[in-house]
Amino acid sequence: MLDASERVSKYCGVLVGCVVVATCVMCGTKSLAQSSAAAARSTNDASPIFGVTIPPGYRDWKLIAVDQLKTDKVDQLRAQLGNDIAIRAFKEGKVPFPDGSIIAAMHWTRVSSEDNNKVLAGPFPGAQSFVIGSAVNVQFMVKDSKKYAATGGWGFADFKNGKVGDEALHKTCFPCHEPAKAHDFVFTHYAPTP
Amino acid sequence: MLDASERVSKYCGVLVGCVVVATCVMCGTKSLAQSSAAAARSTNDASPIFGVTIPPGYRDWKLIAVDQLKTDKVDQLRAQLGNDIAIRAFKEGKVPFPDGSIIAAMHWTRVSSEDNNKVLAGPFPGAQSFVIGSAVNVQFMVKDSKKYAATGGWGFADFKNGKVGDEALHKTCFPCHEPAKAHDFVFTHYAPTP
Repeated sequence: MLDASERVSKYCGVLVGCVVVATCVMCGTKSLAQSSAAAARSTNDASPIFGVTIPPGYRDWKLIAVDQLKTDKVDQLRAQLGNDIAIRAFKEGKVPFPDGSIIAAMHWTRVSSEDNNKVLAGPFPGAQSFVIGSAVNVQFMVKDSKKYAATGGWGFADFKNGKVGDEALHKTCFPCHEPAKAHDFVFTHYAPTP
Repeated sequence: MLDASERVSKYCGVLVGCVVVATCVMCGTKSLAQSSAAAARSTNDASPIFGVTIPPGYRDWKLIAVDQLKTDKVDQLRAQLGNDIAIRAFKEGKVPFPDGSIIAAMHWTRVSSEDNNKVLAGPFPGAQSFVIGSAVNVQFMVKDSKKYAATGGWGFADFKNGKVGDEALHKTCFPCHEPAKAHDFVFTHYAPTP
């Protein structure tokens, strides 16, 4: 069995972007202040191969969906956001996504909420609430059918604390997304409105 | 032990709004078309006690956080969205929330994604991906410190398929939120930006 760093250099994860097991080794080792400082410092970094940078203001984009990923190394709550072009395509159910679409995938550690569990314990014995622990990484898929023709029209990027991942990591992104070809290489589907 | 309907009449859940175990009995029994039709029909319904209606366009509000809730009856992925007034307060870390703040809590069933698991199986044996199954309900907290003075300044509402819950259900909302008094009765905290 490959170790985490070997595996992450060979494979990109699923659900919009890469799983990035290796980056999780550092989870929780940096304070929020450090994280913010790093993000402020490094927002102009571009991803290897694709040249994708962190889109300003992406944290305020609209919600596509949420999910959870659990491996032997990773236990995450996740959310995917889209810029207006991507959101329109999701709502209309149209693929391929038009050029200019950007999808942001935010990944956080999943932790048990003792505070919530205390409240739940009375009415719902055994209930378990899981909330966000700390930020792990953010990934982007940028649609440009000409520029990124060799990778299904998508450029990829992975950032942790504002620092972009290396070339080996970014080589794994597209091969992992290929099984989602029927949905224009995007795993995430738009969450229904309750 | 109380049955689901008895329990839901006595207790409101956590994490912004009510858990609404009873409403989950009907999960998956209505088609998407029925759900959409119901939503279109009933968006002018107001919640008992509080008179809160579904805010138009709330699905496009900005993301506050995500979480997961598991009880003996419920297995959910959840997301909380906020209108601009609420989001500003969350970002500034200020409580109490100003009048006009609205928080929307969307709840979906959590299901295993066989498609994603197939992709993960190669690089991450035993990995598990969980995604959104179907919509369960949406809940709102509306801040009006005068109108809702008796309930911490918050009015509550719970909708399933666009249909508002009954008075017994809405009586449980504020008592459940009281343990979060130090955070202005809001359980959810703003998710850090990766």
